[in-house]
Amino acid sequence: MFKANITITLRSSILDPQGKASHHALGELGFGSVQSVRIGKFVEMEIKAASKSEAMEVAENACKELLANSVMEDFHVEIYELVA
Amino acid sequence: MFKANITITLRSSILDPQGKASHHALGELGFGSVQSVRIGKFVEMEIKAASKSEAMEVAENACKELLANSVMEDFHVEIYELVA
Repeated sequence: MFKANITITLRSSILDPQGKASHHALGELGFGSVQSVRIGKFVEMEIKAASKSEAMEVAENACKELLANSVMEDFHVEIYELVA
Repeated sequence: MFKANITITLRSSILDPQGKASHHALGELGFGSVQSVRIGKFVEMEIKAASKSEAMEVAENACKELLANSVMEDFHVEIYELVA
């Protein structure tokens, strides 16, 4: 069994209103040292696979076909082996 | 300048309907090897700070005071130094 940790982020050219709102709110709360905030998704997935590379392929295809919007988002996958 | 990569995840005891829906949809798309899906947030933050530990403190406080719901969510912060 493998665990995939996936981060899905808006491309830098895409406006991120949720991040902008959080940045503004942090400013109001006194966090003046925070220069920018961008908010994406973090997906944890357990995958039954014979190898790390097979698990990577499943996770990448899941991102391409469902989880990420390939026009607006990038994704990054890290695979860990789960030891029983 | 430092960059904080923050993952915010629902505690394992909390039901994750978004993850359940994604898991179901992946099953329909033929991803039978995916055993579970949980969906959280990924926050990227740029922080002006004198040291890595100061940046870590800012990021952790931002999570505690605004970004994470401490009753339902856990967060994990990684700090990187940005080299100009």
